[in-house]
Order: sequence, then structure tokens, then C-alpha cells
Amino acid sequence: VIVSLSPDARPSTCVALLAAAAAAGLESRPLPDGRGGDVLGVNSALPTNALQRPGVAAVQTTHKPYRLASREHRAPSVVRVGEVRIGAGRPVLMAGPCVVEERESLIEAARAVKSAGANMLRGGAYKPRTSPYAFRGLGEVGLGHLAAAREATGLPVVTEVLGPEQVDLVAAYADMFPIGARNMANFPLLRRVGKTDRPLLVKRGFSVTVDERLMSAEYVLASGNPNVVLCERGIRSFDATTRFTLDLSAVPLAKELTRLPVIEDPSPGTGKRSLVTRMALAGLGAGADGLIVEVHPTLTGPSATPARPSRRRNWRRSTAAGGPFTPR
Amino acid sequence: VIVSLSPDARPSTCVALLAAAAAAGLESRPLPDGRGGDVLGVNSALPTNALQRPGVAAVQTTHKPYRLASREHRAPSVVRVGEVRIGAGRPVLMAGPCVVEERESLIEAARAVKSAGANMLRGGAYKPRTSPYAFRGLGEVGLGHLAAAREATGLPVVTEVLGPEQVDLVAAYADMFPIGARNMANFPLLRRVGKTDRPLLVKRGFSVTVDERLMSAEYVLASGNPNVVLCERGIRSFDATTRFTLDLSAVPLAKELTRLPVIEDPSPGTGKRSLVTRMALAGLGAGADGLIVEVHPTLTGPSATPARPSRRRNWRRSTAAGGPFTPR
Amino acid sequence: VIVSLSPDARPSTCVALLAAAAAAGLESRPLPDGRGGDVLGVNSALPTNALQRPGVAAVQTTHKPYRLASREHRAPSVVRVGEVRIGAGRPVLMAGPCVVEERESLIEAARAVKSAGANMLRGGAYKPRTSPYAFRGLGEVGLGHLAAAREATGLPVVTEVLGPEQVDLVAAYADMFPIGARNMANFPLLRRVGKTDRPLLVKRGFSVTVDERLMSAEYVLASGNPNVVLCERGIRSFDATTRFTLDLSAVPLAKELTRLPVIEDPSPGTGKRSLVTRMALAGLGAGADGLIVEVHPTLTGPSATPARPSRRRNWRRSTAAGGPFTPR
Amino acid sequence: VIVSLSPDARPSTCVALLAAAAAAGLESRPLPDGRGGDVLGVNSALPTNALQRPGVAAVQTTHKPYRLASREHRAPSVVRVGEVRIGAGRPVLMAGPCVVEERESLIEAARAVKSAGANMLRGGAYKPRTSPYAFRGLGEVGLGHLAAAREATGLPVVTEVLGPEQVDLVAAYADMFPIGARNMANFPLLRRVGKTDRPLLVKRGFSVTVDERLMSAEYVLASGNPNVVLCERGIRSFDATTRFTLDLSAVPLAKELTRLPVIEDPSPGTGKRSLVTRMALAGLGAGADGLIVEVHPTLTGPSATPARPSRRRNWRRSTAAGGPFTPR
Repeated sequence: VIVSLSPDARPSTCVALLAAAAAAGLESRPLPDGRGGDVLGVNSALPTNALQRPGVAAVQTTHKPYRLASREHRAPSVVRVGEVRIGAGRPVLMAGPCVVEERESLIEAARAVKSAGANMLRGGAYKPRTSPYAFRGLGEVGLGHLAAAREATGLPVVTEVLGPEQVDLVAAYADMFPIGARNMANFPLLRRVGKTDRPLLVKRGFSVTVDERLMSAEYVLASGNPNVVLCERGIRSFDATTRFTLDLSAVPLAKELTRLPVIEDPSPGTGKRSLVTRMALAGLGAGADGLIVEVHPTLTGPSATPARPSRRRNWRRSTAAGGPFTPR
Repeated sequence: VIVSLSPDARPSTCVALLAAAAAAGLESRPLPDGRGGDVLGVNSALPTNALQRPGVAAVQTTHKPYRLASREHRAPSVVRVGEVRIGAGRPVLMAGPCVVEERESLIEAARAVKSAGANMLRGGAYKPRTSPYAFRGLGEVGLGHLAAAREATGLPVVTEVLGPEQVDLVAAYADMFPIGARNMANFPLLRRVGKTDRPLLVKRGFSVTVDERLMSAEYVLASGNPNVVLCERGIRSFDATTRFTLDLSAVPLAKELTRLPVIEDPSPGTGKRSLVTRMALAGLGAGADGLIVEVHPTLTGPSATPARPSRRRNWRRSTAAGGPFTPR
Repeated sequence: VIVSLSPDARPSTCVALLAAAAAAGLESRPLPDGRGGDVLGVNSALPTNALQRPGVAAVQTTHKPYRLASREHRAPSVVRVGEVRIGAGRPVLMAGPCVVEERESLIEAARAVKSAGANMLRGGAYKPRTSPYAFRGLGEVGLGHLAAAREATGLPVVTEVLGPEQVDLVAAYADMFPIGARNMANFPLLRRVGKTDRPLLVKRGFSVTVDERLMSAEYVLASGNPNVVLCERGIRSFDATTRFTLDLSAVPLAKELTRLPVIEDPSPGTGKRSLVTRMALAGLGAGADGLIVEVHPTLTGPSATPARPSRRRNWRRSTAAGGPFTPR
Repeated sequence: VIVSLSPDARPSTCVALLAAAAAAGLESRPLPDGRGGDVLGVNSALPTNALQRPGVAAVQTTHKPYRLASREHRAPSVVRVGEVRIGAGRPVLMAGPCVVEERESLIEAARAVKSAGANMLRGGAYKPRTSPYAFRGLGEVGLGHLAAAREATGLPVVTEVLGPEQVDLVAAYADMFPIGARNMANFPLLRRVGKTDRPLLVKRGFSVTVDERLMSAEYVLASGNPNVVLCERGIRSFDATTRFTLDLSAVPLAKELTRLPVIEDPSPGTGKRSLVTRMALAGLGAGADGLIVEVHPTLTGPSATPARPSRRRNWRRSTAAGGPFTPR
């Protein structure tokens, strides 16, 4: 917020504003306005009208409402997750099952995606479910399986956190938190993960505009955590032929507007296995800094003996649970 | 969930299923299937595949995924908030400011809406805000103002709760909780308010289908709280001429599909004061059990002396903060 | 278009502009601008830059792009179809089958809707069909059936015209043309019906904004036909639970922005018979000047002898072909 | 339509069905059904119920409603426009201005896009305009400019036709017709261009599903013209940050479902010049058979002498008229 003082403002006005900001725990500082006037910058969560008083000529918000995410005057950021660098030019690949099930099959999946070139392992221990009667994941047991798979492969682990009360527990296991599409406006959660140092993958909500999504990232940044990666995963449109509509134009647009890396999640966006490879290539063409994809073991041979080398061929991209699925 | 046993299932299969259900804390009971077979009903939060074992022919979910909200075999429910009965035939009117500001003006607003026929007072003490820099409400101070306005007028108070960690505090002041559009998929919150006995107003998310919304209500019902009222408040469409698109067809549809009362919130749905009265009438035509509207004092006269009787005429419907506004 | 002349413009500039407008077949006239300047109003289909020349200070379009539809400075219009007056305060009811099939059943339908209070008969002889293999209506034979039903009942006939080449033929039978949702941007058709004196029902396209729809009406008005009635019939949203999403807020909004009557078509908007009555009431609550509804004979009794008086009870509201249908 | 005869159907039933089809001007033929039954295939525009009679067991439509567009049992098609082959493996580039203005600048644009690698020239002589007061293109004069540019460069010309009454005129100049997004459901136009041998570019309407769009292509194919290319150009979603939302998943999906080539039009889909290159690469990643892009001369140097070699650098991708535009 920029507070412009009127030419006849008394010094006490400025002092009172600084005191009001300090009392609210906010940072503020006097700024020259280039025209000889006095201006006060307040990094403000005060209601704008709390700053209006005699001697104040105007209270303005800065151009971009997402001040910290904005590319204005700042270099693009690179987010590190262990030795992985997201936004450093080389696309990053995160892969793994939608839901963590058994420990052995998860470790096998982790080895398979690593040998296929993945840099990070994804998998859900806590799943948001539309139905209160659906399986909601293995919880802490699943987190333990993920840690075991990390130990076996060295891949950092990406696993979702659903609420502020889970953050400490999940942080004990996860290297990176995805904030799911349904939680983009869960502001207590955004503020809570913003207090950690864990890198975050901020997915776009089903019906959230480009600007609103940047404001969700801004919540995290404003809480002190600079390690934010955006993730495009599909929005809702009138056409349900694909599970969601992948809005890939939002990838180059986010890179133009912000300094944050952007990755693409083609699995929910298409909901159809046969489209995933093409849309992953499309995302890289659009300039994405990486991909996060779902894989699932499909045992197609007559024998299901685990871990035979030939089985690895059978790891295939699957799609989000519940979406349409075209077996080959 | 309906578990169909195969004709050659052993009695021990049935016993094991009943034990599995009991171990998971679930209610289950044998059902005749009308064709001489044995069927087991489980009110299940078990993953469906946990019920598949030798002797089980099929595991099916019942028709409506929203079992408890469904109108099948059940009478429409009436939700009581103090002496107010929602769904009892006579439309209920909830009114008040979007955000609670000062105590005196809130009490004045409460008196004005009561004299205009309102049955309940609405007002936000905690506001979800797209920007981390925006005013987020007065918090507990605002809750205190609401309690004072209730004391002054006798109107029960409706005020939003944003996260599970706030439920105990807000419950100490509020008579009814709205669950906001952004929190419809905040499942930890839905389960937490489901453990209270406080009536709930479950708003519809911006891009949530009719069925998904009913599943959010089902989360609350399945957690033990039967006092759910649905609220239609506008969805996002391609046309932003009005702030949201009021999907009024969802009102008679919800009344056809469920036993829950449904009210309408025309303020965010239109975002334009001049349309609110017409759309409130439209909602009643569509069969809504009540309305929740925003009001704000507009001082139009030459004098702004508070609490003059003639000022009450000046209380007018306003629209949600940030929406377009046509002053008369 | 308002052309502002600069203070140093020569008289020849004004003459040249008037000549350019006349050469393009346009009406223009000098206007005083209230500030002593010279201003020229051109009812222009010229490209704006064709008016920019030395001595011209500015070329501005007027506030509302829909000049003739706008309510600015003009009274609401009343559209007459025979003795029926649309927009005169009393809601008008148009009813009939979606598609004209047999002559006798159409006449029976016309009698049934008349006895139920309808003022006009609707029915399709030419149907727009998504599939090239679908039945596209009886064509001129169907028009003849409609004329016979009008003769039998006195009800004016509303029937769709699909292209400019059909206008003369359909005009020989129809009292009012609906321009269907798929033809809102069929500008050759809009201009062609604008050259007739037949009243028009301009439906809103599936994904057409409020403003774009008013521009479609403006095409007709600018072509010389003032008898335009708007019709709200549902837009596409992400939620396909109902066949379309009825955007009823657009009804009072159109009445605020324009001088045109607005009616509602609840049948495609809901696609579900059980919702039609409620949504018709909602439309009237929203301020609609009338309704257009689909009816279809449902023979529920053991006998299908035509025209038994008791059968009239069986004429019921149906929904558009292909929509979901809940039989009672 | 597949008509299955019941085992006890009399030969006269089959004869009557063949006669009914012939009377309606339809092609039909007996088909073996593989199970020893008698089946009749009718390429039918008859209402399905017109085929139901004694002896008919079932009337079924074939799996895909888009029979001719479907990939079932058929190889992908290659569409030729002069020497250009669309769908033959090498991406095709169509480029040119949105609207044809002056002859010289159009020829210059054609030379510039040819030297930049384009295979075809696009440009609009008839423009669909939301406003009746907007410039609607130069009409036949513009068609003449396009022909001159073709003569100067050898590039085939792609130019839109707006209605069935324009087809003969435009066909005298154009090598390929785009059917615009607003005309996808202009069935008289689709049938009329289906009677020509001119290749067609069928764009997707703003709110048209993947299946509906294929049915529009089917209209053309069923009218006898096999030379159909699909074009993805953006749909409407709730987010207007970009002008339309490019639904690139529809590209690989259309190639999976149909035998038709698919190209991408990134200009209206983004509405922002800085995003066009990235989204063109994304489209090729998604598997598009080509691109159609808008270019416009931006005269940045002090001199505007035409056709200086150095000016060619200044030809840049622009976006659709009316969209946002970011000058460099």
C-alpha cells in the first residue's frame, strides 16, 4: 500500500501512520515520490480505510496485487528440492502413483520412474475425496512408505497436505508439499505452509483465474516462504469430454507475469491415458519447467511375479482415479 | 454399500464381513435381496476393495452417493435455529452486513433488518480474502459485536467459520455456521463442524456441480450433524456481466433430490444492487426456503446523525464487497 | 458514432464527412456539443478510421454499443403480435410442441394450450440438428399444419427460421420468428429478418454474453425492424446436471439496460420436466414479460382415442428432445 | 442407422423399409449381422420411429454418431490444397492478416510470410462482427486482393465464407474455406459447402463440445465433400485473462477419434502476441498438423517505404482484432 501525504500534512500524521503500522505488526517505510512529496509505504494488512486520516491525500495499492510473485524488477526464481533445481532451464519430472498403497509396490514404482528418468517421487498419503465414504489414503502409514521409497531410490518425495493441522506431521516425511486444487483458497493452510521452509507446489483450482491463483501463491510468499512452484492441472469448462480442460496458455502467461517456476500436471487435465504423452510434450512446448505425472503398474503378462526386469515395461502412465481410462 | 454374497459363500464370510465392518466402527446389517440371496448392507467408509473376498459376488454402492441427504424414503427436514424454523413452509430471511465493522452500526443494522422483517442476523467476523494484504475481518472482536447485536434484537446470528481450528471459538458466539463457497471441499472443516450440533449453511462452491455439493453436505451429515441447510449463491460461467451466475434451477433440483432445506443468497450471485430484489423474488418462485441478503447503511440524507428513525429507510441492499455497485 | 471537429476545422471537412456518410447510405446530422464546438453524429457502418481526416479531433462511439436497444432516453417498447402485446405488463404465454408432427395432434395441442391460458402457439417446422442424420422437421408441410392450428384456435404462430433463404417462405405462415440460440451470430439472417416487419424472438446463444446478445438484437433493430423481444433460454456452464444453466439474472439486467421485452424459455434451460413449473415462476419473479414452454401429449390412460376431453389433462409440459425426462 | 429385423419378420417388411428409405431419397442396403439375422443399414435422415414397424426388432444408431469422420476402420485422411498436403506428417503453416485492407500491403504480407516459411495465405474479406456498426471487410474487393497476392507469391488462399449465399462468389477466389467459430451450427452453410469440392477448415465454436464439433464436420462429409480439416481456436471458460481458452487436449483427442487432420489457431486462443509463439510450439507438441496464425505489419522504422528487405523483420504475429496487444 502506498499512502500519499498531502502537502499540508503535519509530521505527526506520518508518525501516527508509522505507529499504526507497527502496532499492527507491519513493516513500513517513508518513500520519496519523485515529485517532492512525502509518501509512506506500508506492507499492509490493515484495512485501507484505517490509513485514511487528516493529512492523507490518497491510499493506493501497488500495480500488481501479487507484489512478491511479480516479475517486476526481479529475476526468475529457481526452487531447490534436495539436488533438484526447478526453473533452472532443464525440465524436472515428478512421477509416481496417485495414491500410496503397499510399501513394496511403491518402492517398485519409485525404481521404475527413476530408471525412466524421473527426478522426484509423487504419491498421496492423504487424499481429498468428494465422498465421505471413500478411501482417504493410508495417512501416516503411507508417509512411511514414501520415506522408504526415498531411501531406496534417493528421489525426493512430493506428497499433499490437506490442512494446517497436518503440516508438522507431513513435513517430517515430505520434501515438497503440493497444495491441491481444492485447497487454493484454504487461506489458513496457505499461511501455515508459508511459515515452513518446505518447497511448495501450488496447484490451480478448478475455477480459479490466473490472477487469483497468483494471489494464493502470494499468501505463501507473504508468510515468508519463497520456494513456490506453480502447477497447471486443468480447469472446468462446459466440455467434460476430457476430465478437465488443460489451460496451457496460463503457463507462458504465468512466466511472463511472475518470477515463479511453472510445471504441468497432464494427468487430471486429460483424464485419459492415451492423451498424456502428447499433452506433456505440449506443456514443454508451452515453456513448462517440468511435469508431474501419475503412473500405475499394469500387470499385463501372464505372471505377476514382482520385480522381474521385464515388468518395468508395464509401468504405464495412468490417469487420476475416477477418470476415464483407455486400456491398450 | 451393498455386498452381494455368492450362492456358495460360507457363513464365515458373512461373519468376517460383519467383523471387518465393526472393527472399522461401521454399522452393517444383513439384508434380504428379494431373490433369495444373501446381501449385506454396510454403511461403509471402508475402501470398496476391503470388502472383496472369496464368497463375495459383488460390492455395489447404493443409488445415490449422498445417502443421508437423499430424499429417498425420508421426509424433508426442518432445521431449527432458536425459534426460527427453516424448511417449514414460510420463507426465512437472514440479513446483515457482509463484514462486521463497528458495534454500534452493527446493532443499528440488526434493528433495521429486524424491523424490515428479517428473522436472523448475518455478518462476517472472519472473511476469506483473495489477497493476503486485504482486511480479514475483526475476528473475535467482531464475534463479540454480533453477540451484542443478538442481545439487542433477539435475532440469532449467522457467521462464517474458516477452518477447523476456529470452530470452538466461533461456536461460542454463533447460532449457525455458513460454510463458504471456498470451503466446500475443506473436508477437515466439514468433518469438524459435523461433530457439533450447530446448524450449518452449506454454500455452493464457484465451480461445484449439484452432486458434489450434496456430497459436501453428506460429509457433515455423516459426521453426525443433521442440521444442514443448502445455500445457492452463484457459480462461475463464461459471462462475468453479473459477478456470478445464479443457478436457480439448482434450487428445485436440490429439493427434488434431497430432504434438506435450500436458501438463496442473491447478493454475490448478482453483484449489482439493482438486481437483488428481482432475483430474491425469483428464488422464492423457484421454491427457496429463505433468503440471505447483504445490507449496508447508505447515508443519503443531508444529516448523518445516527439512529434517527427516518434513517432506517436508508438501509439498503448492498452487494458483496468488490462487486459492481449502482448507486441510486 | 460521434465525430468531434477541431476548432480549426474548415467547413469543407464537415461537408466531406456528410458526403462520405451519404455515399455509404448512412444517416448523419450536425449536433451541438454544448461547449460551442461542432460535432457530427453519424449512424455509421463506416470503419471508424474512414472518418478520421484533417480537422477531425475525435471519433467516438456512443456509450452503449447497442444504441437502438438501449434504454437511454427511450421508453420500454411493447411488441404486438396480432392482438397479443408483449411487454405491456401482463405476462404472455407461448406454448406448443418442440417439433410439429401430425396436423391433428398439433391442432389438439393448440386447443389444449389455449384452454390452459396460452396466448400464442409455438412449434418447429425447421429444426436445427447437431447430427446431419437426424430428423430436421417437416418443413413447409409443418408450416401448413401450424397455419391450420392458428385457424382452428386463433392463436398466433411462433416458428423458427434457420437461414436468410427461408425467410420469405416462413414469413408466409409465421406471426413471429424465433432466432435460435445457434443463430445469434448468423449475421446475414439477422439482417434479413431485420428487413421484414415480423416480430422477432431473439434467443440467447449458449455462450453469448449479455452484451453480445444485445448486439444481435441491435443488428435487427439497425436493419429497420423495431419489433424485437429477447428470450433467455439457458447458457452452458461447467455443470451439466441440468441441460443448460438458466441465467435468470440476465432478465432484470436486460430490462435495466434495454427497452426491449424479455421472456423466458424454461424448457431447454432445465431439460427436466419436473423443474419447469418452478423455473417458470422464478422467471416471472425475475420480471420476465412472458414464457415460452414446450408441451407434449403424454397418453397415460389405457385408451388413446384422440380428443377425448379427459385427455386434455394429460397434456403436460415436456422438455426439449434429447434432454432428460422424468415421467410421472 | 442399423435396423435389426426380428426372426419372424416377413420379406415384405424388408421391402417396405427399403421403399421407405428410397421414398425419402436415402441410401440403404441389407447387411449380414454375423449371427444369421437380417439387418438393414439405412443412411438415414428419417426419424428413427419411422422405421419401427411389425417385424422390426430394433433400430440402432451406429456407435459413433460421426460415421464418416470416425477413425473406425479407416486410415487418417490427407487434405490437399494445391500442392500443400495437410495431415501428411509435416506441419503446414497458414499465415496472413486478420482482415484484408489494401492490396499492396497484403501482397507485401504474403511475401513476408512466404519468406518466413508459410505454405498458405490467410486473410478475411468478409468478417463476422458482433456490432452491426463495425467494419465488415472489403467483400469482393478484398477477394480480388487475395487473388493478386496468390498470383504474386503462389501461396494458396484461405478466406472465410459467412453464408450459403456467398459460397459461389467466394469459391471463385478461395482455395480453402474456413468455417468460423460462429458458423459451426449454421447447418445450411455446412451443407452448401459440402456440395463443393473446396477443402474446408472447420473451426470449433466458442462453446461447442468435441463431439458436437465432429458432427459439424460430419455435415460437410455427409454432403459429399471429404476435404475437411479441423481447427482448434479456443473455447470460452470462466477465465477471460486470455481472450479464449485454448483446449489443446482436443487436438490429440480429435486425432484419436477421427481420421481428419487438425490444425491450431493460437491467435484468438491467446489474444496476446507474446504468448503466440509458445502456444504454437505447444500445439505442435500436442500433435497438430499445422498452424494458422495472424500477422500484421508493424512499421517501427522512420520510413515506411514498402518492401524494403529490412522491413520484413517488422512483420510480426499479431492477434485477433479487439484482443489485448502487447507492443514490443
